[in-house]
Amino acid sequence: MTETVERRLTPKGEATRNRILDAAIGLIAAHGVAGTSTEQVRQAAGVSGSQLYHYFTTKQALIRAVITRQADAGPGAPAPGALDSLDALQAWADAAVERQEGTGGRCDLSTLAAELSTGDASSRGEISAGYLRWQGVLLEGLGAMRDRGVLRPDADLDELAHALLTALQGGSLLAQTLGSAEPMRASMRSALAYVRSFAAEPGV
Amino acid sequence: MTETVERRLTPKGEATRNRILDAAIGLIAAHGVAGTSTEQVRQAAGVSGSQLYHYFTTKQALIRAVITRQADAGPGAPAPGALDSLDALQAWADAAVERQEGTGGRCDLSTLAAELSTGDASSRGEISAGYLRWQGVLLEGLGAMRDRGVLRPDADLDELAHALLTALQGGSLLAQTLGSAEPMRASMRSALAYVRSFAAEPGV
Repeated sequence: MTETVERRLTPKGEATRNRILDAAIGLIAAHGVAGTSTEQVRQAAGVSGSQLYHYFTTKQALIRAVITRQADAGPGAPAPGALDSLDALQAWADAAVERQEGTGGRCDLSTLAAELSTGDASSRGEISAGYLRWQGVLLEGLGAMRDRGVLRPDADLDELAHALLTALQGGSLLAQTLGSAEPMRASMRSALAYVRSFAAEPGV
Repeated sequence: MTETVERRLTPKGEATRNRILDAAIGLIAAHGVAGTSTEQVRQAAGVSGSQLYHYFTTKQALIRAVITRQADAGPGAPAPGALDSLDALQAWADAAVERQEGTGGRCDLSTLAAELSTGDASSRGEISAGYLRWQGVLLEGLGAMRDRGVLRPDADLDELAHALLTALQGGSLLAQTLGSAEPMRASMRSALAYVRSFAAEPGV
């Protein structure tokens, strides 16, 4: 539904819609989804109530658009074809640890998934879709590595993709809960070591 | 604070308090924290409003007590000294996968941490305390394994404990989001393989 609306927007309309999304993302990073009201988003974006309503008729519609935006282009979102070497995977993992070392709140797919994992069925579809897209990028990259002979033919790519995504999700949530980047550092080292244990040449 | 109250309870009072907690845990498993009201808990527990208030003056106090109960004795909670061998760790991981294969909602430390990771500062202390206790049990077990020569002297126990906890947390959240036990199976296999990569005898 969101896509249909986007296609019809003028450049000016798209700029306004993006301004609203940017404002929502900033507020959610600081206060979480539950702690962010549409009135706060309206004020932060500098739009009228009817403008906000024109783009997002409900808070749920706004949150769904935030999830889709962050899954597609937010922190940690892998570009298609980007994760097709052990070095690229390592850089992706290092970036996740680095984000965790920064102060302040976050509004990325991991934190959105955590807060909305229970109760809010309306946003679960967008979160699942976001994860399936990330999983697809990982599978594509791992498949390319196996085809090039970097990974052994017996590597279970689905399992490796899951191991990397759960490491990101678990690392993010525990790092946030315990106020330390160490859980993310450990989860990423562990998952990368698991991927490397299927390398055709040991010790890469 | 909760402990002080508990110490003063008569056996009958403790039974009532436990009945309230059991009712809350059942409702949270089905509807999440946000979707559970104290009135629903009161009805499910079969107590009066003043009885409920006697034990838990606010919903937040009730939720904090649920977190502490589930961290101490809920699904996945490791008993002190219990995780001191590779077989014991494997059994703990297998049980986590098995829980994920079951249908219906969950109210364990992982799902509580996910839902309450943002916004609700009042419960974060209990969640952190729960995780630190689990981490302590893991560190104790991993330390015993290193002392017995099962793990190599250079094994970083803090890192291994974090890797296991983040695997549990990430596996739980992604399994719930995607409606499949596969993420938990992959995260646990990956974390256990990482622990085993520090075994003194390769291939155990």
